[in-house]
Amino acid sequence: MGAGLGDPLRELEFTTENSAGIEQKVLPTFGVLVARGGGAGRALGSFDWAMLVHAEQAFELHRPLPPAGTARTTSTVTGIYDKGSGALVVTENVAVDAETSEPLVTSTSSAFIRGEGGFGGERGPRDGGDAWELPDRDPDLRVEEQTRPEQALLYRLTGDRNPLHSDPTFAARGGFARPILHGLCTYGITGRALLHAVCDSDPARFGAMSGRFTRPVLPGETLVVSIWREDGGALFQTAKQDGTVVIDRGRVRVRDAGVAAS
Amino acid sequence: MGAGLGDPLRELEFTTENSAGIEQKVLPTFGVLVARGGGAGRALGSFDWAMLVHAEQAFELHRPLPPAGTARTTSTVTGIYDKGSGALVVTENVAVDAETSEPLVTSTSSAFIRGEGGFGGERGPRDGGDAWELPDRDPDLRVEEQTRPEQALLYRLTGDRNPLHSDPTFAARGGFARPILHGLCTYGITGRALLHAVCDSDPARFGAMSGRFTRPVLPGETLVVSIWREDGGALFQTAKQDGTVVIDRGRVRVRDAGVAAS
Repeated sequence: MGAGLGDPLRELEFTTENSAGIEQKVLPTFGVLVARGGGAGRALGSFDWAMLVHAEQAFELHRPLPPAGTARTTSTVTGIYDKGSGALVVTENVAVDAETSEPLVTSTSSAFIRGEGGFGGERGPRDGGDAWELPDRDPDLRVEEQTRPEQALLYRLTGDRNPLHSDPTFAARGGFARPILHGLCTYGITGRALLHAVCDSDPARFGAMSGRFTRPVLPGETLVVSIWREDGGALFQTAKQDGTVVIDRGRVRVRDAGVAAS
Repeated sequence: MGAGLGDPLRELEFTTENSAGIEQKVLPTFGVLVARGGGAGRALGSFDWAMLVHAEQAFELHRPLPPAGTARTTSTVTGIYDKGSGALVVTENVAVDAETSEPLVTSTSSAFIRGEGGFGGERGPRDGGDAWELPDRDPDLRVEEQTRPEQALLYRLTGDRNPLHSDPTFAARGGFARPILHGLCTYGITGRALLHAVCDSDPARFGAMSGRFTRPVLPGETLVVSIWREDGGALFQTAKQDGTVVIDRGRVRVRDAGVAAS
């Protein structure tokens, strides 16, 4: 996964399985892909995929992900809300170790499908029920990450081949000037920044992460992750260099070093 | 495969399978990987892999590779030669369409294993039996291709996980200052340049290619492919910017547009 997020050289432990003296580790945000299994979106029925964007993503790691293993996943659509201009579909994905049934990851994703609202459904909870307030102080830390012009074509090697991220014609139908970056790529780059900034680079200390996608990112743009430490973790926002926030209401939960020993 | 060779954006037809109005194609040099199947090096017995480098690579496409399909491959070690300072192992790989048994690719690879010579074997043919002379004129065409610092970590996603290309410790044991680029990555970048320069960018016109690896390439270095047109194709050399030749005795064979229609 390291390669899809743009800087494999810096972190061989997240990229190779056969480097001498380097213990292989897994980036925590890979948990989202594990929990999703092969079923992303399959249950959602028929609509124009060019109109779908990732809206929110939260996940919790019940234990650090092993470099190899087999997971069993269950996906449940937990809500379909009518937001007027579109539908918000919320899915909960749970991954357990296929052998021991021990819980690995619980992930909650929501997707916004423009043009599919107005069906008379509930509007749903306003803030996902999760209180979040921008701290009234400068961030404690800012981490800058440059994406590449071809970043989405690398990230799609994770298996997410939605042409919104590769096909100019398809992206234009969605109203985008060119193919946009996968929300989960922005999320993964942000997660890696958080891993290093607030978890001492130790995946075992990465407990949970959540955030809301607010604006699309174009491959090649620079991301700035602003971090405010708080008890038990940190709040964050990810923005472009001009300040446009692309992930809002971000929160990461850190585990104690002692408790997290694996 | 486009992504592993460094410029997926420029050539969506070699990178994506679901872009509107873009017919998916396969880079001709992918044929080498198809023909190799999963068996690269398995038959060679026990030696220090840090001492093995790719020495020569030739392949012929019997038809353009389809974007999807299943091949059946046969690998035969056709020679083990004693070069004194090392052993030269020549392997022929043949791929046929698994369904129709039609021939797809014939590929001949040789690997040089330093320190495994002196066993009293034959020295083998000096030039692979193939006459080649550097033309006594400037190249008709030069194509420059910049590799990336992390190029080898991207190329290894093709499945070639030899740590010589990723692990600094392993590479040092082979005598390299840092992990070197896969010979087949240099070969693939060269092949793409030839495809555009002498085959009108049409994989159906790419008949065959051969060359000898003469020096290692470090990820991040710039490659310059020098091309001399000749009847039925072209001769080529690939060099670094300082002129150090890294693929010598290069030859590409072009098919007539008419004959090659697929």
